[in-house]
Formats: sequence, C-alpha cells, structure tokens
Amino acid sequence: MSLLTVGTVAFDSIETPFGGVDKVVGGACTYISWAASYFTDEINLVSIVGEDFPSSELKQLEDRGVDLEGLEIKKNAKTFFWAGKYHDNMISRDTITTDLNVLDDFDPVLPEKYKRSDFVMLGNLTPTIQDQVLVQLNDTEGAFVALDTMNFWMDIAMEKLKEVISKVDVLIINDEEARQLSEEFSLVGAAKAIHKMGPEYLIIKKGEHGAMLFHSGDIFFAPALPLKEVKDPTGAGDTFAGGFMGYLAKTGDTSFDNMKRALIYGSTMASFCVQEFGLDNLKDLNDTKINERVKRFSDLVSFDIV
Amino acid sequence: MSLLTVGTVAFDSIETPFGGVDKVVGGACTYISWAASYFTDEINLVSIVGEDFPSSELKQLEDRGVDLEGLEIKKNAKTFFWAGKYHDNMISRDTITTDLNVLDDFDPVLPEKYKRSDFVMLGNLTPTIQDQVLVQLNDTEGAFVALDTMNFWMDIAMEKLKEVISKVDVLIINDEEARQLSEEFSLVGAAKAIHKMGPEYLIIKKGEHGAMLFHSGDIFFAPALPLKEVKDPTGAGDTFAGGFMGYLAKTGDTSFDNMKRALIYGSTMASFCVQEFGLDNLKDLNDTKINERVKRFSDLVSFDIV
Repeated sequence: MSLLTVGTVAFDSIETPFGGVDKVVGGACTYISWAASYFTDEINLVSIVGEDFPSSELKQLEDRGVDLEGLEIKKNAKTFFWAGKYHDNMISRDTITTDLNVLDDFDPVLPEKYKRSDFVMLGNLTPTIQDQVLVQLNDTEGAFVALDTMNFWMDIAMEKLKEVISKVDVLIINDEEARQLSEEFSLVGAAKAIHKMGPEYLIIKKGEHGAMLFHSGDIFFAPALPLKEVKDPTGAGDTFAGGFMGYLAKTGDTSFDNMKRALIYGSTMASFCVQEFGLDNLKDLNDTKINERVKRFSDLVSFDIV
Repeated sequence: MSLLTVGTVAFDSIETPFGGVDKVVGGACTYISWAASYFTDEINLVSIVGEDFPSSELKQLEDRGVDLEGLEIKKNAKTFFWAGKYHDNMISRDTITTDLNVLDDFDPVLPEKYKRSDFVMLGNLTPTIQDQVLVQLNDTEGAFVALDTMNFWMDIAMEKLKEVISKVDVLIINDEEARQLSEEFSLVGAAKAIHKMGPEYLIIKKGEHGAMLFHSGDIFFAPALPLKEVKDPTGAGDTFAGGFMGYLAKTGDTSFDNMKRALIYGSTMASFCVQEFGLDNLKDLNDTKINERVKRFSDLVSFDIV
C-alpha cells in the first residue's frame, strides 16, 4: 500500500565524540523514506529543497521507488541546513546552526495522486505544515496517519500541535516529550493522558533503552539492539518511524500484533542507522541483512518460563 | 539448594516525591533474603544488627525459612542506619545520613553449616568483608557466587574490589558502575572488559530501563515492567538480585537459558518492591501473584515474525 512521507530534506553537519561529517544529506523525510523503501516501493514524498541539492541523491531515492512529484525544488534558494554536536552520552546535543532557507516559507501542495495515500508519516515539522498536509488528503478517516514531533513545538506552538495530534492514529515521540506533553511523569500515566488527546496508538522512543507501543491498556516493548559502537544517532528516530510505517504499508495490517512486528522492524532499521554517519549504512541494506538482525532482536528478549 | 545471603540489615528513612517513611527495616541482605524466600527455604543469612533491631522482624524472616545463625546481634550497639531523599526522577538520590554503627567493625564469621552453601549472594558491602566471607567457604570453586557492589567502592577501594570480582561467577552492577569499572562507554564493550576481569556472567541493571545479562558474546535483555506508579526504588536492585539467585537456588540450574528465566523472576520481584515503601509489598506475595506478573513480562516483549 502507498505511504506518504512528509518532512525535511536537508544538509547536516554532525560532530560526535567519534568523528564528524560536513554537509551530508539528511533530514527527517530523507531518513523516513530510505528506511521505508526496504518495505514498500509506493512512497510519495512531500518536501522542499533548494537548487543546491544534488540531483544524484534524488536519483537514488527514485531508484528505490520514491515518487518525487511532491518535492519542490525552489529556484535561487538554499536547502535547509542543520549543524549539531553530540555530547559524550550520544543522546543530548547542541545545535550549532539552523539555516531554515527554503523551509522558511514552505507551503506543501500535494500532487493529486498523493491524496489517496493509505499510510501517512508526518515527520517532525511545524504543526501548521503537518496540518496543511493532512487537510489536503481525500480521506483522512481512511488513511492511517502517524505523527512525529519534538519538545520545541510543545514550547512554542502547543495549541496547534494538540489540534494536529487530535487527528492522527499514532503519535511517535520520545520519553521526555511524552512527559512534557502529558504533564505525567510515569510513561504509563503519560500514555493514558495522550490517548485522551486523540491518538489510539502511542509510541514512546527511549533511544538506547528501546521503544514502547501503547494501545488501550496494552503495552509492547521493543528493546534497542546493544551495539559495540554507535557512531551517529542523527536520524535514528526518523529511521525508526520509516521502518515502522514502511512495514505497516507493506503488510496493510494495523492490528496490534502486526504493529509489534512493525516496531521491531523500526528498531532494526534504527540500529543500522546509528552504526555509521548520516545515511551511509541505510543505503547499503537488503532483506537478508534486515531479517538477520530482526532475528537478533528476537533472541535478545526470548525466554521460556517452564 | 542452599543460598548464602550476605549484606546489611538496616534501618532506612526514605523520602521520595510521593511520600516518606521513617526508620523502617531495610538493608541489602534483608531485601535479598525476602525476595529469595519465595523460591527457596534454604537461606543462610550473614549480617549484623544492634540490640535495637526488632525481634519480630527476625521472626518473620525465620518463618520464611531464613536461617539466622549467621546474624550477629551486637550488645550495646545500634543497627546500621541510612537516610536518603530521592530526586524527582526517582533514580538519583541524596544520602542524608549514614550511621555505620555495628557495621563499623563487622567481622563476619560463617557458621560451619553455611560453608557448604551452593549459591552465594554477596550484597553490597566493603569488598574486604565480601572477601572475608568468600575465603571461609569450603568450596569456592563449587559454589556459584554473585556479587553486587557500587561506585563508592570503585572510588575508594578499586584494587581490593577487582580482587574480589576476579573470584565470582556473576557480577551485578548498574550501567554507570559498569562504565566506571570497565572504562568503556558502550555496555557491550564494558561487558567484554568485565568478563576479562573474571566473572563469566555480567548483569547490568538499568532501573526503569530493564536489565541485561551478558555471557561469552550472548546477550539477554529483560525489560522493567512499566508501572503507573513507583513509590520507592529503595532495595529494588537487592530485590532483583534476591529473586535472581533465589530462582537459581530453587532450580539448581546455571545454564544461560535458566539464567534468562532467573532474570525475569528477579525483575518481577523488583517490580513489586518499588510499588510500596520499604519491604511492604515484598512481605505480601505468593506464587500466584508472582507467576501472574511473570506472564505480564512475557506478554510485554513477545512478538512473532511471520
């Protein structure tokens, strides 16, 4: 089934305790689309770049089945640029530079054929733009919509954010964001409060501590794969979301049991992402590598109580 | 099979964001023994208290099959006392008071029958005292020994600590301690370094983020149960260790597969512990409650990849 992916396509400069890269291709929508492309080739991408964005990168996305009719290439303008530096814990980070560039007046217009997408992944962006995409869909009720956001929008646009959240099926946020949004400290309490805001499903990402799926009193926990070396966490959350929604779009099954599997596939894709800088590892995967790693997740948590 | 439990028996005053208790019974050995008592009634306790320690509490332990011949009740002396206050995150805490009292010159002497214990749980204490217990065992090679410790001993007695660690089968520490001990940031890297120090098995406790078991390249992950309310984390790590070693002593099976189960039982016992202050919840359990909760752990992480 088709998956609409929305978010930034960007340049990133990244510094971690283990090295750095300068002005590589990144952005939420890029990570989401690359991860999802291993599960479905019906991806409809909505984003914006400047004339400086390399066409070879776009060609690679198209080769993986990503439709770029929804990608605006703005004349005489520059692509969104982010530079950041990770702390020693590889979780917290300082933003060094944010050049909005083309993002400054991004006004997404959905191509006609995108409006019937079965699954929608709204990557982290201003809630206003996320909503602009939602209202253009032909059948919001029929589409299965997931939304990623961050504490920044909770700080400056909580009202609008809550409006958009009320329209989606799955909210994907991290533990701190879940606490801020719900004003509850316990994640079980946070889930209860967030369900009341609209989303029937909630995914709380906890980075190296895994991810949790909440639905109507049920909880599923997917661990993160313990890795000897994490080089760059950038895009891990987007990659997780892309793998999750890509797997749902592939199977067309939004039962809780299938969402558990989707969570494991999302965690699997994220585990590949963090092992190299930028998109390096994500561009070099195949079904065999992915399924071998899914097996490792299964081994990691399997036990028999006799 | 028999389990030797070693550690403090104490009074605790605890303050958390959700309330507090004053001078309740606590101590590593107390939590360990209570938790283990749901799995085996062959528990040999080694500790020390003052004359102020209530005999009714000792009677309760004896009623659960805990042998107290190894408990020294020191005349004209006071029981070890600890007071602490937890921060809002319920993880970090400030120590308000530490009155060593009887612990100041604790010189454990093992009753003859204790020296043949099959399993040994050395709760957090000075490495010197932990070693004093080890050297009194008849058959250190034959006994299966687990050791808990903390960063405090790494700061002031690393050399002695490493000597004791080299003699044990399982080291049980938290993630920060594993990083400090190994000087490795990644837990996979830390495990590799710690295996080289002696312990064939390593358990890394991550509090609300679960626990990991490492053995010769294999990793098992046990989640923590997501709880709506955590009232008091005091003793959770000891309770975990008690459940873990109690289950091993009950089954007499130290295979990796059985240790996975033991980790789940340990996590189960810890989940009960944190729901009430002090030992309140731990004193009120039975097989039915425990097995129902183990089932919840199984449901939490089970998925089928089709």
